[in-house]
Order: sequence, then structure tokens, then C-alpha cells
Amino acid sequence: MRCGIFYRVQRTTDIISKTLSQVGERPLIELLRQGAALCPDVVVGMGDDCAVVRVSPDAAEDIVLKSDPIIRGRHFLGDAPPELVGRKAVGRALSDIASMGATPRWLLVDLVAPGDTPLEYITAVFKGMNAVAAEYGCAIVGGDTCKSGELHLHVFCCGTLPRGSARLRSGARQGDVIRVTGELGGSLASGRHLSFPPRMVEGQWLRDRVNSMRDISDGLSSELWHIAHESKALLVLSADAVPLSATAAADASPLDRALYDGEDFELLFTLPAENDPEFDVEWRRRFPDLKCTRIGEVVSTGTAGVVFTDGARVPERGYDHFGKEGCKE
Amino acid sequence: MRCGIFYRVQRTTDIISKTLSQVGERPLIELLRQGAALCPDVVVGMGDDCAVVRVSPDAAEDIVLKSDPIIRGRHFLGDAPPELVGRKAVGRALSDIASMGATPRWLLVDLVAPGDTPLEYITAVFKGMNAVAAEYGCAIVGGDTCKSGELHLHVFCCGTLPRGSARLRSGARQGDVIRVTGELGGSLASGRHLSFPPRMVEGQWLRDRVNSMRDISDGLSSELWHIAHESKALLVLSADAVPLSATAAADASPLDRALYDGEDFELLFTLPAENDPEFDVEWRRRFPDLKCTRIGEVVSTGTAGVVFTDGARVPERGYDHFGKEGCKE
Repeated sequence: MRCGIFYRVQRTTDIISKTLSQVGERPLIELLRQGAALCPDVVVGMGDDCAVVRVSPDAAEDIVLKSDPIIRGRHFLGDAPPELVGRKAVGRALSDIASMGATPRWLLVDLVAPGDTPLEYITAVFKGMNAVAAEYGCAIVGGDTCKSGELHLHVFCCGTLPRGSARLRSGARQGDVIRVTGELGGSLASGRHLSFPPRMVEGQWLRDRVNSMRDISDGLSSELWHIAHESKALLVLSADAVPLSATAAADASPLDRALYDGEDFELLFTLPAENDPEFDVEWRRRFPDLKCTRIGEVVSTGTAGVVFTDGARVPERGYDHFGKEGCKE
Repeated sequence: MRCGIFYRVQRTTDIISKTLSQVGERPLIELLRQGAALCPDVVVGMGDDCAVVRVSPDAAEDIVLKSDPIIRGRHFLGDAPPELVGRKAVGRALSDIASMGATPRWLLVDLVAPGDTPLEYITAVFKGMNAVAAEYGCAIVGGDTCKSGELHLHVFCCGTLPRGSARLRSGARQGDVIRVTGELGGSLASGRHLSFPPRMVEGQWLRDRVNSMRDISDGLSSELWHIAHESKALLVLSADAVPLSATAAADASPLDRALYDGEDFELLFTLPAENDPEFDVEWRRRFPDLKCTRIGEVVSTGTAGVVFTDGARVPERGYDHFGKEGCKE
């Protein structure tokens, strides 16, 4: 048996009698993480964008594992075009694979749906999933189906990357600059949450150049705080520098859209400041059509925090899947 | 790009306008399978118990991938002890890994649940999942959570096995004898569907001795027909030989329980008749406490069929997840 039976001590007495909505998603995940076994063949376990595991001690490539559910009425509306629903379901998982700098290889899909769902709808969803998988060089190789009162798609992605090269949210260092690809905010309002391109080539190119990386699924604020917590670092955000989408810019509170909307699926990363001038030139040469904006700095390590340049705290507010807002859309 | 864009021709015009319940699970899966891309790094794609994939052409070990959903009110009742719910959720996926003769390594779990679910219930479910994972030498390394109207667990298992050694349902040969482990039938009535032990050690031991193998999730009839279809073989079942559980034996229709109840999670396999006498001796020595019963023969190949010894057809009836019965329990 490879996995230890030493479970970490759980401090659960204060929250255990509450419901998921009362507790929220993060304490739930932290609790489940505490209960998980520790295994030597697990490079990265619960808590990052993906898990990273190693088939054997001398394996040349690590395996990256990710699962992602989407639910009708929560992640997409019933009238969303089914091919775009499929594209989003697979695209979300691929975006997480991109944020580790990995290559997606194989997908499994669990489909649960009401019995009265037209087969035509399901085949259109799978057409969308197969199409985005093919664009990114991977394929659906299995899964399962079951009847349910709601329509859910659970996409499991298995990717690979050179041993030890995964970029994590915990790698931010003092003196790093913070950058983000593309433009943020208004993804739901503009419909981009259904058609975004996972930043796969960019993630693979960034892998050997950055100290920490993740994708923006729950909003810039939430993702910055994730890096801050996991890296135990103080991050300073230049609000004026945040690249806004046209939809966000037209909103009454443009910055809020970028900070809290989520589902941008852009890459957020940190890299050493001394490498930044050369990085900037290289990026423009390699990806001339995609913005990559410097939006802040990692000023110190030791304590987690995210502040604006005037010292005001960036609210740690993101999408909570068990919170009052429910799931997205 | 590794995956071809050559999609197989779909003959969908006759069923595409129907609903999932009208069509049923098998035609749905066959349709989705036709739409999937073909990739050289996929050893076994959609349609077997698990997918088998290869990280690189010279990899020493193949990767086995499986996903399995369970839904409250369908696969288990609301009053089932939560630790046993967790045990079943992981056990089902492990049983599929066992049926390939593989070793389970890593698990991801998607949890979707109503917001008013007590945290205590969820932690008990995960306690059950972590316990069975530890027993089988694997661990939960990630997953995702989301609010939903129903409680679902989707377990994704990644296992490994020596390159090219997966045992499939398509390997049955003329002259094989058919054997099954344990006793069949009445799994739901006896509660065994919540506490069965996945036959992992047995599956690994059987891997190099059998021509075809699968686990019994949807009932003996359904699993025999799967082997018949995938191996294009005619199977003869000796009804009198089928090992019955005490619960099935006490039923008014004992054989029906074994044929159609499902969720026994025993291993069903075929091996060359000439090896069977020695196999029988070896099995009794290696697994003295577990029955392994010879229940039939593969009499010919070319056409798929399952018949009793008197020539009567074994009804191809199993659990259809989109059929009138809905999901199990």
C-alpha cells in the first residue's frame, strides 16, 4: 500500500453541524483536503487547479488530473446552443490544464440528464465537446451516463507534462511581477463564457518562465487571493492597469466586473521582475494578438494579502458555489 | 495534433428525434462512441469497462481511466449510512479497475449537493471514500464541488497496469470456459450493494490467465451479452451452475435475481478450457475463501449470442439507466 493511513487532525467541531450553504465552498474543500491521505506518488494533491501525480519514481512525464462539473440552469441556461454548452464543459477543464502548463490528452465525460432530453440535444453537446477536444489535440475516451432530474456534464481531463515542471499557485516569490492575459470582466453578459479559447499554447510557453500560474475561473480577486494564500505572499494590485473587456468597460462598475465576475479563463501568473523586460518583448513576438498586462507585484512573503496601491484591501470575494448567489448564471 | 479528425459515419436519422428514455442507454452510448475521434495513444476507447491509454509509445505502463456517477434516490436511498454511500461510490469505480486487472492509483471526486446538506453528512461520505481508497492503496487527490438540486458523487479513477496487459470484454475465444467469482443476486435487498469488496487482488491475479473479463454491475445476463457482442461469440450458460447468494436463493425466482439484479461487483471472465483444471487448483490455493464457479462455455465465434444449455435464448435484459425502471434502487 502506497498511501499512508495518517490522516491530519481535523478541527471540525465548530462547523461540522452546519450546512454546505452556511459554511461555503472553501471551508468545505479545506475540510475534505485535511481528510485525504498523503501519498508519495502525488506531487500536487487537493487544492490547486489540478492534481499532479507520478506513475513511477523515474517517469519522464507527470500526469495532470482535473474534473469539472457544469449544470444546466447554473453554469449555462437552457436556451444556450448545445454545441456551445459542450464547448464550455470541455473548455473549462482544458483551461485548468493550461494553467499548469500541461498538454491535455484524454477526457472522460459523465452525462446525467432527464429521460425526456432529446437525443438531438445530447449529440449536439457532444459534437461541441468533440470539436473543442480535437482543436486541442485530445479526445473523449470514455465516461458514463445516468438518468437524473437535472442535466449535468462532468468532464475529467488527464494531461501530461515534463516531470516536475507543473506551475502552481503556490510558487509566487517576493519581487515577482503579476501579469494577466487578455481582458477581464463581463464574460457572462457578453456570452464569452460559452466560447472562450483555453490558453493552452500560452500556458505551455509560460510554464518555464513563471513562478506561479492559474486560470481565472472565479474572478481576478478570488484568483489573486488564491495565489496569496498558497504562496503566503502580499500582492499589490494596480487597479488602473487591469485590462477590461468592452463589456466590463461599459458597465457602471468596470473594475468590479473584472474582480468578481469570473469565467474569463485567462491566465494569471507571476514572474521575476528582472526577467520582465525581456519577457515582455518575447511575449509580443510570440503572441502578437493577445494582450499580456502587468497588473501588480508581489511585495513580500510570510503573510497572505492582496491590496490596492493605496493600501486598501482587495475584498476577498469570489464566486462561492455553495454561497447565497448559487452557481454562476 | 495526435487525434484524427476522421469521424465515423453516423446512422442517426432514425433515432435522433427521440428522447433518451425512448432510445435507452446502449444506443446512446453507441451513438456517442461513433462521434468520438480516433487517437493512436488510445489503446481502448469508449465501450469497455475502462479506457486504456498510453502516455508515450515506449511507456512501460498503460493508464486506465474510469468515471462512475452515483445519485441519491437512484443508486442509494437517503437513509443509507453516509460512510457506506462513500464506500459504494469509490467501490464501483474500483470494481471496474479490477475488471481490467489494473492497480488503482488516484481518484478525483465531483460532489454536487443541495445547499442545505449538512456538512456532517458530506464529511461522513468522504470518510467512507477515503477509507476504501486507503484499503486499496489509492487516494483522493482532487475534484470539484457545486450546488445542485440533487446529491451526486462522480468518482474518476486513474489506474495503471503493465503495457498491453489489460483484459477486455472483447477477448473471449471459442473453447473458453466461463467463470464467475462469489455469489450473485439480491445485492440491493441484502444491502451488499453498499458494502461489496472490489475484487482487486483477484482481478490482478486473473489478468494473465484469462481471455476476457468484466465486473458484474448490471446483472449476469447483461454482462454475458456484453462479452458476446464485443467478442462476437456464442456463449452457453448452465443455469444450474450459477452461484446464488442466500438472498437470491430465498427469492421466488432465484435465477432471475442473479441474471437481472446487478450490482454484485463480482468478476466474470473466460479462459481457455485446456487451462481450466490447473486454474481451478491454483484458484483454490490462492483464494480459498472465495468461490469461483464454472458457469458455461464459449462454443463458437462469428455471431453474438447467449443461450441456456437447452438452446433457449438468455433474455438480453439488464439495467437501462434511461429505461422505464430508472436507475437502480
